Amino acid sequence: MATPTSFSTCLSQKCVIAPEPIDKYRNYLTCNYSNLVSKRSIVSNAICVSGGLRQHCMQKERISMRNGVRCGALEVKNTKPSLSLGRKFELDDVIEAQQFDREILGNIFEVAREMEKVEKNSPGSQILRGYLMATLFYEPSTRTRLSFESAMKRLGGEVLTTENAREFSSAAKGETLEDSIRTVEGYSDIIVMRHFESGAARRAAATAEIPVINAGDGPGQHPTQALLDVYTIDREIGKLDGIKVALVGDLANGRTVRSLAYLLAKYQDVKIYFVSPEVVKMKDDIKDYLTSQGVEWEESADLMEVAAKCDVVYQTRIQRERFGERIDLYEEARGKYIVDKGVLNVMQKHAVVMHPLPRLDEITVDVDGDPRAAYFRQAKNGLYIRMALLKLLLVGW
Amino acid sequence: MATPTSFSTCLSQKCVIAPEPIDKYRNYLTCNYSNLVSKRSIVSNAICVSGGLRQHCMQKERISMRNGVRCGALEVKNTKPSLSLGRKFELDDVIEAQQFDREILGNIFEVAREMEKVEKNSPGSQILRGYLMATLFYEPSTRTRLSFESAMKRLGGEVLTTENAREFSSAAKGETLEDSIRTVEGYSDIIVMRHFESGAARRAAATAEIPVINAGDGPGQHPTQALLDVYTIDREIGKLDGIKVALVGDLANGRTVRSLAYLLAKYQDVKIYFVSPEVVKMKDDIKDYLTSQGVEWEESADLMEVAAKCDVVYQTRIQRERFGERIDLYEEARGKYIVDKGVLNVMQKHAVVMHPLPRLDEITVDVDGDPRAAYFRQAKNGLYIRMALLKLLLVGW
Amino acid sequence: MATPTSFSTCLSQKCVIAPEPIDKYRNYLTCNYSNLVSKRSIVSNAICVSGGLRQHCMQKERISMRNGVRCGALEVKNTKPSLSLGRKFELDDVIEAQQFDREILGNIFEVAREMEKVEKNSPGSQILRGYLMATLFYEPSTRTRLSFESAMKRLGGEVLTTENAREFSSAAKGETLEDSIRTVEGYSDIIVMRHFESGAARRAAATAEIPVINAGDGPGQHPTQALLDVYTIDREIGKLDGIKVALVGDLANGRTVRSLAYLLAKYQDVKIYFVSPEVVKMKDDIKDYLTSQGVEWEESADLMEVAAKCDVVYQTRIQRERFGERIDLYEEARGKYIVDKGVLNVMQKHAVVMHPLPRLDEITVDVDGDPRAAYFRQAKNGLYIRMALLKLLLVGW
Repeated sequence: MATPTSFSTCLSQKCVIAPEPIDKYRNYLTCNYSNLVSKRSIVSNAICVSGGLRQHCMQKERISMRNGVRCGALEVKNTKPSLSLGRKFELDDVIEAQQFDREILGNIFEVAREMEKVEKNSPGSQILRGYLMATLFYEPSTRTRLSFESAMKRLGGEVLTTENAREFSSAAKGETLEDSIRTVEGYSDIIVMRHFESGAARRAAATAEIPVINAGDGPGQHPTQALLDVYTIDREIGKLDGIKVALVGDLANGRTVRSLAYLLAKYQDVKIYFVSPEVVKMKDDIKDYLTSQGVEWEESADLMEVAAKCDVVYQTRIQRERFGERIDLYEEARGKYIVDKGVLNVMQKHAVVMHPLPRLDEITVDVDGDPRAAYFRQAKNGLYIRMALLKLLLVGW
Repeated sequence: MATPTSFSTCLSQKCVIAPEPIDKYRNYLTCNYSNLVSKRSIVSNAICVSGGLRQHCMQKERISMRNGVRCGALEVKNTKPSLSLGRKFELDDVIEAQQFDREILGNIFEVAREMEKVEKNSPGSQILRGYLMATLFYEPSTRTRLSFESAMKRLGGEVLTTENAREFSSAAKGETLEDSIRTVEGYSDIIVMRHFESGAARRAAATAEIPVINAGDGPGQHPTQALLDVYTIDREIGKLDGIKVALVGDLANGRTVRSLAYLLAKYQDVKIYFVSPEVVKMKDDIKDYLTSQGVEWEESADLMEVAAKCDVVYQTRIQRERFGERIDLYEEARGKYIVDKGVLNVMQKHAVVMHPLPRLDEITVDVDGDPRAAYFRQAKNGLYIRMALLKLLLVGW
Repeated sequence: MATPTSFSTCLSQKCVIAPEPIDKYRNYLTCNYSNLVSKRSIVSNAICVSGGLRQHCMQKERISMRNGVRCGALEVKNTKPSLSLGRKFELDDVIEAQQFDREILGNIFEVAREMEKVEKNSPGSQILRGYLMATLFYEPSTRTRLSFESAMKRLGGEVLTTENAREFSSAAKGETLEDSIRTVEGYSDIIVMRHFESGAARRAAATAEIPVINAGDGPGQHPTQALLDVYTIDREIGKLDGIKVALVGDLANGRTVRSLAYLLAKYQDVKIYFVSPEVVKMKDDIKDYLTSQGVEWEESADLMEVAAKCDVVYQTRIQRERFGERIDLYEEARGKYIVDKGVLNVMQKHAVVMHPLPRLDEITVDVDGDPRAAYFRQAKNGLYIRMALLKLLLVGW
């Protein structure tokens, strides 16, 4: 996004609190917006100079560029700005893991850490007050939906919810996704969408003037899962550079491990071990990508040996639905690499077991009590990551 | 509703703010309630004189007449009354388009205009704080449900929601609608109901002591759609008297166009054009009604000619489900009148294209970018109309 | 739960309001927690002595014992404590009717009475502000769900809702209930669960560190229904000792009447009449239990005679689904004992008709208008009981 110089300068100013209702300053704020080129722009903590007076303004409405230059409602907050000089965060939508670079990941994680500390009925728990999130689910995913809705409500926001969005495009009616999105964006401030078709989230984001978060689109992407996985490694191990990670189980079909491998490539000296039954091996595209990024990787058939040297053992479920009629292959694959007490026993003291959940028996329940069993903490981290994203997309830094 | 004189007089007084907790005044407020004859009555902005002191009281609970005379909780608001002398609005339920006269429509639209200006976290966005709306849907209608729920939440209210209300009267149980309503009204302050049977909303309203809004009852009524349609014409064209409206598409089955024709008859010098395939022509009852009301109407087979002279081209979807086995008739009807760039080209600059949504291909997508494409603004207007109705039914003017 | 003496003592102190932010006192509050042995403990209205200053602290977070000693966020409330000396209420979960003794019932009913008086937008309507309830329904029960959600929202709390929880453990995935609970407890502060399997609620409570309320687990328990039944008798008749209650209809399969009989046994001089078709007679276990508790009971085939002497006629629905192919037996049983005007005519003036709802025709609709028809008031009492339980479980007395 090309931001006009005058505005950038503006952002880097220190500020004082505006002593008057915002209406008085509105004209100062709107003057440069016509130069903005992105679909929409959050100008959070915008700082504007008017007649020698500097105001710190928290913009609570997005600026839409679609129907000409419009300026949303503005509200002057009596707060000390938390952003440092020139610091700025651009995030329009959350569509795929690939959109994040190392710096943005670091920023999101920093906000997620703040989210962990949000206490009930504190001012921080009300930062999304007045905002409405639409959870537009074209297929049910109760776990993901509840996590997003909890995140929104923990920050004082409200939720419109449907797991029945497929009804929009039911046989009898046949509405396009784009039309549904245009309708729903009229009712809400942000859309969290789950869809059964790969690419649906991107289409929704291209249509909507409000932010869209992809909560999984078919075999495509599930970027918030990828984020919470990396965040969990950072929280549990204390670092992301120089770590050794074992990816175990269904590496062919699991979008989770594929996204995770992709994101880990952004860090230094990472080593990845692939441990999987032959029928569900990691595909070449990810291997090639890792190689191209200078990330060491290795395939292994020995879970014990790998577990002993890794910081993270990331187990996944073998998905029966991927095997069709070949139940025999499924049963063989499924029993092959189980994380149990034996695996725990060879793991290092600081290492952790992760899993995107739900699990069947690929991690035995007697592992749950071990402090290194990180998978329920991992699920909880999903809450903080989603709180962070909602905050960043709706009110910015 | 027959309001006792003493109380009417009361309403027309100027007021001061009550300096004491409302309990002190409660006896003054309840004294005349036994004379009220309506099912229930919102006495909003009631003004009561006690010992020379005038209090302005915002009644936050409805007065139930059913189990004898009861007076709900009262709360003294530190507000200047916005109602002018003797101005009063009576609205118990919203059941059908026919219940509104021109004056009431004007009042609702005035409130809807105010609703457009409600800003996040402003006092206006909290006027329904503490109120609970039950969205009791006997069949899914995600679009309508989200619109109502957004409306309620934009005003600070809360929502209980079910799209599964049919479960109340499931085969095994067989509860009557009336019993379900009596249960749900114990949990909420207003019921928004969608039902598959014509007349269900009227039955619900006859049972409930709290307000009921019909969100569509089968082939029957969908009054909030009718209101938002008229409101949109008013907002887009700037007037309702003297307008020319083309109703296009399925005029036989669409309850939308039938209700719209009915409401337009309340305005002066309106001219309506019916443009539809032969199999789904407007029925005689509406034509006869328009004639009886002195409204000019005309059938035409030439969409281009009509579009050129109208202020509004109201397109509708040909509903496949109405054709049963006769797919051939459906396909013929469906392709006959399409609103495309060609139609736009003959339309006047100030005219608009409307559609109740969802659309299939009866409006081509290349029309969407034209400023005269009003259908997504129309959908958004549904939000403001519903906000207005919720406000009027729950706290009155 | 074994509470350490030092802490108990603490609870019995009078208190003053803490003049400083709670952080200053946090170390005083956490000191003794390691001695607590229960799964979790609400130390509501905890009173702590620090350097001669007594503080009244409302603990807003539960103390988890699972991952070592952690102390939740604390908040000092500027309130006068409503608890009397040494008065304390322990309630971890609500799983079955049997867990309540007479004293606890009395306490719950006392809070329910307070709940009846909670007015919109009063401070009392905000006591659960910031709290999140997850309604985790493995099968739909709209009535029960809406009642709980209304209760939570009437107290300022928020709700995460799913009637689709079965999707957690869908064939393809097969997650255990325990894993689902561990995930959901990360998103919420209390879980209200409906399940299709008897014992599921107990398993959930054993897993969760947050409170669990059983909203019905298959043929098992539905304790909040039992509580609201007893509460309704108390409210309608004014006492529970010395009452005469007729249980009518399906006594074999109805968990409602079985739980009610169980709870009534906790009161003095209660007499229970069983009036039911032969095929659905009350089972011996309950009869034996009543006898062992010294509760008089009697079977009768004459509803009129019984109705004439009872304080409560508790009618139930004959459940068709229990009869399988034997529709003939169902039809015979169903028509046998109907509560109609004739029954009303012999009932005493102070007596009431109750029913857990939904009803079919076992109470004729012409009974509804009689003041002794208490079943819709009974449904409403469910709201107050659930408000009371939510309050007690989340913030204590």
